[in-house]
Amino acid sequence: MTGSHIFGLELGGTKCVALRAEGHHIVETIAVPTAEPGATLGVIDDLFGQWQRERQPDALGIASFGPVGVDRNRPDWGFILNTPKPGWAGTDIAGRYRRLLGVEVGFDTDVNAAALAETLWGGAVGTSCNAYITLGTGIGVGCVVRGEPLHGWQHPEFGHLKARRMPGDVFRGNCPFHGDCIEGLISGPAIARRSGMAGEQVEDKHPVWDGVVHDLGELLAGLILGLSPERISLGGSIACARPWLVERARGAVIASLGGYFDNLSKDINRMIGVTALGDRAGPLGAIALGMTRIAAGK
Amino acid sequence: MTGSHIFGLELGGTKCVALRAEGHHIVETIAVPTAEPGATLGVIDDLFGQWQRERQPDALGIASFGPVGVDRNRPDWGFILNTPKPGWAGTDIAGRYRRLLGVEVGFDTDVNAAALAETLWGGAVGTSCNAYITLGTGIGVGCVVRGEPLHGWQHPEFGHLKARRMPGDVFRGNCPFHGDCIEGLISGPAIARRSGMAGEQVEDKHPVWDGVVHDLGELLAGLILGLSPERISLGGSIACARPWLVERARGAVIASLGGYFDNLSKDINRMIGVTALGDRAGPLGAIALGMTRIAAGK
Repeated sequence: MTGSHIFGLELGGTKCVALRAEGHHIVETIAVPTAEPGATLGVIDDLFGQWQRERQPDALGIASFGPVGVDRNRPDWGFILNTPKPGWAGTDIAGRYRRLLGVEVGFDTDVNAAALAETLWGGAVGTSCNAYITLGTGIGVGCVVRGEPLHGWQHPEFGHLKARRMPGDVFRGNCPFHGDCIEGLISGPAIARRSGMAGEQVEDKHPVWDGVVHDLGELLAGLILGLSPERISLGGSIACARPWLVERARGAVIASLGGYFDNLSKDINRMIGVTALGDRAGPLGAIALGMTRIAAGK
Repeated sequence: MTGSHIFGLELGGTKCVALRAEGHHIVETIAVPTAEPGATLGVIDDLFGQWQRERQPDALGIASFGPVGVDRNRPDWGFILNTPKPGWAGTDIAGRYRRLLGVEVGFDTDVNAAALAETLWGGAVGTSCNAYITLGTGIGVGCVVRGEPLHGWQHPEFGHLKARRMPGDVFRGNCPFHGDCIEGLISGPAIARRSGMAGEQVEDKHPVWDGVVHDLGELLAGLILGLSPERISLGGSIACARPWLVERARGAVIASLGGYFDNLSKDINRMIGVTALGDRAGPLGAIALGMTRIAAGK
């Protein structure tokens, strides 16, 4: 697949990124603000059309914010499901581009896709189970088991875990569904509301980060108990900008799991880290999904 | 594998069960109380030796309380790891019986094994991801993904999740590691301590069950968010004796996940239920593990 030509589309809460790659070398990315779907996808349509006239892709990979339909045997495959983002619920994404481009489409959550990129090219090469957590506009968790994204009834949505609260922390959370689930407590907008300023402006020694570290620690502890990943990679704008958060969260995990796992202290630095792919984890996830379709067709 | 002759061993917190099966038809089971390992395993040794003289098995499957070493490439494969059960930590189980019987040994947690039995013969046939929860002396969670038990760094230990507490419930829990993790709150011994009587004697309308339903609901909600199983089967002495607990827990799951998943109310009765295998889920799990070794050798 080194010589394959793949289009990618990463649908995020803030921006959508169209990209094209030779193998997994990204040669061009163009970002479009996430507005209502007609407008945003219209721009992507034009862009893909233009790129296709230059060279037909071998496949397309789409990595989307969730929840999405990931079961290829179901009629809602390739659709965005019950999202609060205005206008996006019920939008057919994969079918749209399969028709437009006439190629096979790989489709999954942005975080399952990033976990797959970590398996193929990042910090999770050689693992049988790895996870990817994005800390950004939302909190998402993806997982790959034995080389394939984890699907079942739907797909992991572990960012909405209702974890044990930090004693004394009374922030009510801002998840429209659950209030103070992990996403409601430590997403970018939640940090902004907790601190009263834009998240990027909160200084590193602000006490709001104590709550973030605690809650991220609980998410990581739950993930270790639930899935036992060999590697958990953290990405997204917050993790990439503040890698010390991940360092501190390791301590919170050790505190939370209370000596239950013999080897955790020894293994935790290797187990939990900032994504080796940096801000390319998301785009490479889309490319990885496209590659799975080329592999499936062979 | 219909005609294969398989020995099984189920190591539980209260009793250990040796069994033999033709295909997955169990022909004999003998239970031995779980005392210190030398005594308990000595009885099993004699029993397996006697059965072997009658007919050589094709494989052995061992399903054990955890944590255990499940990675066949590591030196602690087949060992019981850091358990509080006196004398059992660091005991080599799989190696002992591979040497004694001279057959291939499948080895996993009791709950991963039961989840595999559910995949092969129970309520999870045809699923790509299913989970099994035992409610008994301990609270264990196993998972099978695409036909194989979930392994990674170790194996799932989701019974030790620290979930959000029920408002007003001040029971401190009895897990020696975490206090009020799920196992510390709703295992048989925890229910006995909460109610002040042996668990079997607690009547169905006792208020202690309100807390159990709440906490089980949180465990199930976490499992749905983390793994998205198509089927979650509940077994163990408590679930089998009080199937209404599982019914009530469905309501707690719906309450906890607060409308986030469109289809949950529609799908939950099919998703969450008492194990279709009843009290044979554990023994059949051991047999399923043995079968995997026959399949691997072909």
